[in-house]
Amino acid sequence: MITRTAAGCEGQPRCAPVSIAMVGTDGKAGRMIKVNVMYPYTEGARFDHAYYRDRHMPMVKSRLGNACAYYTVEKGVSGRAPGAPPAFVAMCAFICDSAEGYEAAMQEHGAEIRGDIANYTDIAPVLQFSEVIVERSDR
Amino acid sequence: MITRTAAGCEGQPRCAPVSIAMVGTDGKAGRMIKVNVMYPYTEGARFDHAYYRDRHMPMVKSRLGNACAYYTVEKGVSGRAPGAPPAFVAMCAFICDSAEGYEAAMQEHGAEIRGDIANYTDIAPVLQFSEVIVERSDR
Repeated sequence: MITRTAAGCEGQPRCAPVSIAMVGTDGKAGRMIKVNVMYPYTEGARFDHAYYRDRHMPMVKSRLGNACAYYTVEKGVSGRAPGAPPAFVAMCAFICDSAEGYEAAMQEHGAEIRGDIANYTDIAPVLQFSEVIVERSDR
Repeated sequence: MITRTAAGCEGQPRCAPVSIAMVGTDGKAGRMIKVNVMYPYTEGARFDHAYYRDRHMPMVKSRLGNACAYYTVEKGVSGRAPGAPPAFVAMCAFICDSAEGYEAAMQEHGAEIRGDIANYTDIAPVLQFSEVIVERSDR
């Protein structure tokens, strides 16, 4: 994130600084973050991909509301070598305008969301906040 | 992946089988996979995010050609707790029609691509192949 004074605001005390995240290589400004939720592959662990896709993820999106623009979901197939287990059996990402918006929604709905995890897995997810650098290279 | 005989191909020896991956919850058929490349956070390690975004990733895309529809790039900011290091300092994903197409391009260009890694990091990436379940929830 690059914080700078908005053009024309120099010396104007009521002008707020503007946070600008440079996204991609084309100079377009945005301020997207990703919340990555990753379920480490664990021998013998349980993961119900259908429940995750059809029930859990739509419920989380509805609770996040406008704090989340959209989400992505993927299922781990293999590691680098064919047949080797993937690092993560499932991953999702919530693409949001800000970490603050996500956190505020989780303050309100986190208990319900975390309480649903046992319905599809016994794996404890790894979570991280990331800055979107290239949302998709063809846009 | 569901492999089935293309309609009208029954008993026709020169008709190839068609691979169909069911994507999302809406019944639309697709055949997207993701190749996730993840750089584990390592204390004191080097990662040049500008080189990665501006030089490495466009080079890889050009070598993958049509085998890769588009890619995404993100920069790890923090773990679950504010200020905690992220699991991965950087992640990218190549969204491709098939693992076979990606592998064929890597057979040809893998040495050049791997040879460029030292120009931006000394971290060995974790790689996995994933099936796209929801490409983006708002489409």
